[in-house]
Amino acid sequence: MKELQLFNAKPPEVREAIRKGELKAPTSGMCAGYAQANLVVLPQDLAFDFLLFCQRNPKPCPVLDVTDIGSYKPVLTATNADLRTDIPAYRIYEYGKLVGEVDNLLDIWRDDLVTFLLGCSFTFESGLLQGGIPVRHMEEGRNVPMYITNIQCKEAGKFRGPTVVSMRPIPYHQVIKAVQITARYPAVHGAPIHIGDPALIGIKDINKPEFGDPPIIKEGEVPVFWACGVTPQAVAMESKPPLMITHAPGHMFITDIKNEELAL
Amino acid sequence: MKELQLFNAKPPEVREAIRKGELKAPTSGMCAGYAQANLVVLPQDLAFDFLLFCQRNPKPCPVLDVTDIGSYKPVLTATNADLRTDIPAYRIYEYGKLVGEVDNLLDIWRDDLVTFLLGCSFTFESGLLQGGIPVRHMEEGRNVPMYITNIQCKEAGKFRGPTVVSMRPIPYHQVIKAVQITARYPAVHGAPIHIGDPALIGIKDINKPEFGDPPIIKEGEVPVFWACGVTPQAVAMESKPPLMITHAPGHMFITDIKNEELAL
Repeated sequence: MKELQLFNAKPPEVREAIRKGELKAPTSGMCAGYAQANLVVLPQDLAFDFLLFCQRNPKPCPVLDVTDIGSYKPVLTATNADLRTDIPAYRIYEYGKLVGEVDNLLDIWRDDLVTFLLGCSFTFESGLLQGGIPVRHMEEGRNVPMYITNIQCKEAGKFRGPTVVSMRPIPYHQVIKAVQITARYPAVHGAPIHIGDPALIGIKDINKPEFGDPPIIKEGEVPVFWACGVTPQAVAMESKPPLMITHAPGHMFITDIKNEELAL
Repeated sequence: MKELQLFNAKPPEVREAIRKGELKAPTSGMCAGYAQANLVVLPQDLAFDFLLFCQRNPKPCPVLDVTDIGSYKPVLTATNADLRTDIPAYRIYEYGKLVGEVDNLLDIWRDDLVTFLLGCSFTFESGLLQGGIPVRHMEEGRNVPMYITNIQCKEAGKFRGPTVVSMRPIPYHQVIKAVQITARYPAVHGAPIHIGDPALIGIKDINKPEFGDPPIIKEGEVPVFWACGVTPQAVAMESKPPLMITHAPGHMFITDIKNEELAL
């Protein structure tokens, strides 16, 4: 499928193309209007702790859907999907270390795995654009800059670690509107968690993000920070579970849920 | 403490009086402005399934706080409380049957128990009153009428069962305002799930609620139905876990969270 086709395609078609191995690209710009999701897969014995971690830290880890133990079917967000195959690229972490990247989980899947889908900022970026607020990294075709902050997540069982934020520079006269728009979407990180001076949340150099590309901040723009779905990966590095599988950056799960269904 | 003192008291004082056995009454009307919560206690091996059940059914089961395995300290809602002692009366269910009511859980507590606190409608009733909308069962000093509907909750692991609703008759010209006010509080059941004809959600006789007192519906009033925190008890009856502990009806846990902190 061409770019414009992918933009207008419905989620089941695109998931099928990904499942068949015909489509291996990052999913940004696909299935306009539909929510995409971050993936976290963990063994059953860590599933309660992780779900509790998400409950206690809903801004970085907003839960959209969780499978029953051993199931790869997301019952709330895409009943006919298969989470072992419908994401273009997966990353395998063992004891906090990235040990591999795979196209699907068919050979890796086990009956004790539980799959979590967490909200993704693509939804609120679409809201910002519709509200006339520019999204710099999209304009520039770059990845959003992400930073590890000094804001510790609330611990839960074996899981602990820092909050990761994404940053978007916003013209000062549109900052409040950006808060209002993104606050409508608590299921995809919601309102920002910090506005202005990066040092106040432990960011030493705004030009050196831990993940993504360096920012371009123009005169009259304020850095605005949102809790970020990369937080579980930072938490995995610190908490070192024996096995944790995630999507590869930018290669998200495309749900059947419309962005507006997630709005207040 | 007298009624007016209890109304104006801070949650830690009232919880201490309950803990010492000096106060054994229903908690309605205590600690004005602070959120109260439903209690569910389950063994660790059912905790993931139940938390997942809540995630899939947030209107009847809005999670305010969950303890770590074996802990009786609610870390988000009242850090100095003890959930084994700070509720005036507890009910013990075994295999779905009520087998006893106790003043505290000190003799019953086990290291594999997990405690869930779920939002309670007292918070949004306070919002309705402040918005000039009468709350009939409070005016009459009765219990709210509650009904088992034909709306099945989404299953999760071993948990399944019907949605229980509470009903408040609202003057027809205030129904929309009642929706708007309660929609501000998703953490305490949020907006109603049905307005009008009870038969459409499987209620055969509005005058015969399954729980609480029969309603008084006046000319020009519309029955409005909200998802209800009694749902977990109906689910326990159907799912029959070996052990489940809840608060006794009306005897809630009083949190340190202000109602307005739960508002959007």
